[in-house]
Amino acid sequence: MLPVPKKFFITAAAAEGKSKLTAFDNALLKAGIGNVNLVRVSSILPPECEYTPGMKIPYGALVPTAYGSIVSDIPGETIAAAIAVGVSPDSFGVIMELTGKFTKEEAEARITRMVQEAFEVRGMELKEIKVQAVDHTVEKIGCAFAAAPLWY
Amino acid sequence: MLPVPKKFFITAAAAEGKSKLTAFDNALLKAGIGNVNLVRVSSILPPECEYTPGMKIPYGALVPTAYGSIVSDIPGETIAAAIAVGVSPDSFGVIMELTGKFTKEEAEARITRMVQEAFEVRGMELKEIKVQAVDHTVEKIGCAFAAAPLWY
Amino acid sequence: MLPVPKKFFITAAAAEGKSKLTAFDNALLKAGIGNVNLVRVSSILPPECEYTPGMKIPYGALVPTAYGSIVSDIPGETIAAAIAVGVSPDSFGVIMELTGKFTKEEAEARITRMVQEAFEVRGMELKEIKVQAVDHTVEKIGCAFAAAPLWY
Repeated sequence: MLPVPKKFFITAAAAEGKSKLTAFDNALLKAGIGNVNLVRVSSILPPECEYTPGMKIPYGALVPTAYGSIVSDIPGETIAAAIAVGVSPDSFGVIMELTGKFTKEEAEARITRMVQEAFEVRGMELKEIKVQAVDHTVEKIGCAFAAAPLWY
Repeated sequence: MLPVPKKFFITAAAAEGKSKLTAFDNALLKAGIGNVNLVRVSSILPPECEYTPGMKIPYGALVPTAYGSIVSDIPGETIAAAIAVGVSPDSFGVIMELTGKFTKEEAEARITRMVQEAFEVRGMELKEIKVQAVDHTVEKIGCAFAAAPLWY
Repeated sequence: MLPVPKKFFITAAAAEGKSKLTAFDNALLKAGIGNVNLVRVSSILPPECEYTPGMKIPYGALVPTAYGSIVSDIPGETIAAAIAVGVSPDSFGVIMELTGKFTKEEAEARITRMVQEAFEVRGMELKEIKVQAVDHTVEKIGCAFAAAPLWY
């Protein structure tokens, strides 16, 4: 099987670019994960996966990551991305991502409720929620991005 | 290289949620794969990959999975998701996923034709098609989901 | 951790199909990667990853791949997909993908600028850009696809 991740952190950032994909690329760079290969996953924090901010990940590594991303080319539009990790006392956790035309505060409130719903549905106790969000008012082409990279 | 999967099963389920992502999460839970990390793949059944329903997969594991998902927030709308695995007598197989505004029966008929086309194009003999599909009439926010998880 | 890829190539192709997903499947077959499992990544060429066209990859293998894909069912519409890999003299590289309603030439020009922007933002020297693109005028249901598969 593929190795199960043992560490994680969360990050969110927004950026402009000259095209939609380079706006995304620039947001990843600002989020600190622009020089690795994100492999998108949906979206469970493995048991005993440890919160480890500030990790260095080798260039080009394959990084299992739950993430959300929104790009807009409508000047003046506000976009947001949020990531939240619900941690249980003694088992796995649940990761949620959210993007949309929100403010940062609204994204944080919504994603918090999403994690609460995910824990209620599973009948699990929610010990802590880690949230990170960003909003961005588009100048020309903007991207808001939020992620929970999982690592080893 | 990444290890090649040796087992598979198919599953389909639908659910409501308070948001689009939690509807998706709830559909995954009903499909029996809500507590793992799906890594989306397109979409070949490796040679000698064995049909193994009822597998237990560890929480948070990275599970290569071909899947389709559709979410709707239009009450009364019928949505469907289907998964089909075409098995060959002696080589690899082909996995197809389909989502749309179909009934379950229409989704099954369409996806069966898609697998037949994939085998014809490859000049391969089709020994068997395994199909699973679900439809769902949306109440508030609904998701239909179908998947072929590959495992070890 | 997941093993870091050591080889890559680029490919682009277009095809028709009887459905959107089989058009995609047919484009993958023409691109030479129709019988493996693409695992989508974003989108860094690892350091010392070697250009290796004509590699044979086992059926059903999990292949980390940066790719773009566009499907259209509007007869007469021209669609394009392009992939570009920017190579640095001594470090990692950057992969860009682009899809849209372009000609092949326009897609190549745009994606070249995207790679240049990605290198400028990183303050890195760009040694070479490898580009591959395809366009396609839709008959019934067409797909244009371009990819940089990473391998071992």
